[in-house]
Amino acid sequence: MIVIAERINATRKSIARALRERDEEYIIGETRKQTDAGSDFIDVNAGSDPASEIENLSWAVEVVQANTDLPLCLDCASSEGFEKALSLVENDVVMLNSINGEEEKLRAILPIAARSGAELVGLLMDERGLPQGIEDRMEIAEKIIGRAEEAGIPVEKLYLDPCIQPLSTTPQDVNNVIGATEKIMATFPGVHTTAGLSNIGFGLPYRGLLNRVFLSYLIRAGMDSAILDPTEPDMMATLYAAEALSGRDDFCMNYIQAERQGLFGADG
Amino acid sequence: MIVIAERINATRKSIARALRERDEEYIIGETRKQTDAGSDFIDVNAGSDPASEIENLSWAVEVVQANTDLPLCLDCASSEGFEKALSLVENDVVMLNSINGEEEKLRAILPIAARSGAELVGLLMDERGLPQGIEDRMEIAEKIIGRAEEAGIPVEKLYLDPCIQPLSTTPQDVNNVIGATEKIMATFPGVHTTAGLSNIGFGLPYRGLLNRVFLSYLIRAGMDSAILDPTEPDMMATLYAAEALSGRDDFCMNYIQAERQGLFGADG
Repeated sequence: MIVIAERINATRKSIARALRERDEEYIIGETRKQTDAGSDFIDVNAGSDPASEIENLSWAVEVVQANTDLPLCLDCASSEGFEKALSLVENDVVMLNSINGEEEKLRAILPIAARSGAELVGLLMDERGLPQGIEDRMEIAEKIIGRAEEAGIPVEKLYLDPCIQPLSTTPQDVNNVIGATEKIMATFPGVHTTAGLSNIGFGLPYRGLLNRVFLSYLIRAGMDSAILDPTEPDMMATLYAAEALSGRDDFCMNYIQAERQGLFGADG
Repeated sequence: MIVIAERINATRKSIARALRERDEEYIIGETRKQTDAGSDFIDVNAGSDPASEIENLSWAVEVVQANTDLPLCLDCASSEGFEKALSLVENDVVMLNSINGEEEKLRAILPIAARSGAELVGLLMDERGLPQGIEDRMEIAEKIIGRAEEAGIPVEKLYLDPCIQPLSTTPQDVNNVIGATEKIMATFPGVHTTAGLSNIGFGLPYRGLLNRVFLSYLIRAGMDSAILDPTEPDMMATLYAAEALSGRDDFCMNYIQAERQGLFGADG
């Protein structure tokens, strides 16, 4: 699993404050905590205020990359923001979060992703809004993959996110996302699938648990990445357990090693 | 989900001691703790020492049933043990754990189950030993269901357990058990499926987590009962979350209600 750590996101109040006040120590703490938890990418989102987004993102990129060896996932709404942030990134590997199936997005961001050789998150939504089933997700996946290839971006760089809707409002969407994940992984060899987990529990109690059970279902469906908070109790343990139980961890070697490294936390 | 609470089992040292020393307070504590955790049946197993099993089981049945309104699941190796324990049971509902596909078992236990109107756990193993795939499990399921019907036991009384083998030794068995569960529930309407979860993590660290992820997979496969420790952290929460995510809890009503009742523990 490729873990994209989600905590440095300006929609969280504590991060919005740290960005506003240039609280370097706070961002460093979040960076190190997520690095130590076993992440593969650190997402950096500074989008709380459009007027200062690019400036804030630039500052955050510098702080984060100075305090981790992990590559960054630049999470930004504008091509200008991506261009500026990419100019600051020192790691050879970088991810852009995100494009979707909208023409405007594809035209603005695909050339930047192609030029920089970045990994690229593609949300399976488009001008029609959020997807409603499996078939519209497949259509958008095919469109994004086709347009990326035309732009010179190989399918292996793409991380398609089926965009889960909350269980409380749209319970049937769990089956759609699981079904779409299975179908995408079978139809487009080499492509990655990912998901922002935390939407699933919107409006319900005990959201961390819903995140974890949903993650275990996605892993069994073949998903090979997730955008999550690796510091949530039992989150990384669930990820390794789900891989071991889904035939994706020979002899449970990764599971055993992750537990020995202390990634499972204290309550084993 | 029909939860069969597994803690009062003489293979656990603390229970073997309590049985030997007639430590009523200890058994009462285990009974109440499991009742409060949201169980549907309390399993009672006194099988640490064949010479005293029937005597110990009889004592335990009296202690447990005096301290819970829940029905018991009598867990015993002999027809004599079942007969004696059944003679003590006051609740109209009772479960017998277990028969399997062996001729000797079927002949000895089915008449007792039929006479008492008991629910009945059927392990999907037989004279050949543990099952190896989906097809042998289906064969044994068909045999048990057929023989039970001949004895006058309707399919709705049967809880078939596909007998998971440890992930550490037999990783492919997870797929077999999930596949067998789906196929049994589709092939034999009305039958229940159940599983003793705790075997899955044998020899691995952090077993509670493996129990929970495995449970969530079984629930998605259609399993409607489990033999588990309802006091393990997050166990009941995982059960309710898995049902909600698997389309088995309209409007998340059970999930929300269980959380309000405090069944999810403290770390929501």
